[in-house]
Amino acid sequence: MTQTATAPRLRIKLRLEYDSPLILGPGKAELLSRIARLGSISAAAREMGMSYKRAWTLVEEMNMAFADPVIDSARGGAGGGGATVTPTGEKVLVHYRALETLLREAGAENLHALNALLRPESS
Amino acid sequence: MTQTATAPRLRIKLRLEYDSPLILGPGKAELLSRIARLGSISAAAREMGMSYKRAWTLVEEMNMAFADPVIDSARGGAGGGGATVTPTGEKVLVHYRALETLLREAGAENLHALNALLRPESS
Repeated sequence: MTQTATAPRLRIKLRLEYDSPLILGPGKAELLSRIARLGSISAAAREMGMSYKRAWTLVEEMNMAFADPVIDSARGGAGGGGATVTPTGEKVLVHYRALETLLREAGAENLHALNALLRPESS
Repeated sequence: MTQTATAPRLRIKLRLEYDSPLILGPGKAELLSRIARLGSISAAAREMGMSYKRAWTLVEEMNMAFADPVIDSARGGAGGGGATVTPTGEKVLVHYRALETLLREAGAENLHALNALLRPESS
């Protein structure tokens, strides 16, 4: 197992909140990406090792948080119907990913400095 | 109470994690700042409306996460002794704040775009 000296050990979690509830974080963004790719909430949930119920809860939270829904879905039967990411959902994802990229790229120096201060991994 | 049109409603929470445990987030950074200013964990906790016990737990978590302690403290009696932020703690805070500033400034456009997609506040 090789380890590159520059690989960041720290994971940045970019969480967007308004008051206390989480509006968007890495998990919701990932779910949104996968639904966009797979066209299905249940398939996206499966890929993430997440229950269908949990995925639905996250989708409903996102749909409630934004003025327009981010996911358009036909709930369907046991397997769940098809689902598409709306134009609003696409915009949300674009801006969230842009902020993540900003941190990863322009923030690289600070991140690496923080990494260097961390306790070396034990055991 | 006036409200500026450009004030961001979203709060970004920058969380630095390694695997699952939170290494540094807004609460810990704030506690660190206040200890630096007040020279006391108990005074910092009081200002934040946080129990002394909780503040101690956060300080211990931070001290464990970094190779060197971020807070140097004399636990003292009931009121707690004095506490100082170490050079490592100062560096940690500087880099964390730099990442926050990066997001707030260079990320302003994406943040405002996300804000504009949010559901207008109800009630």
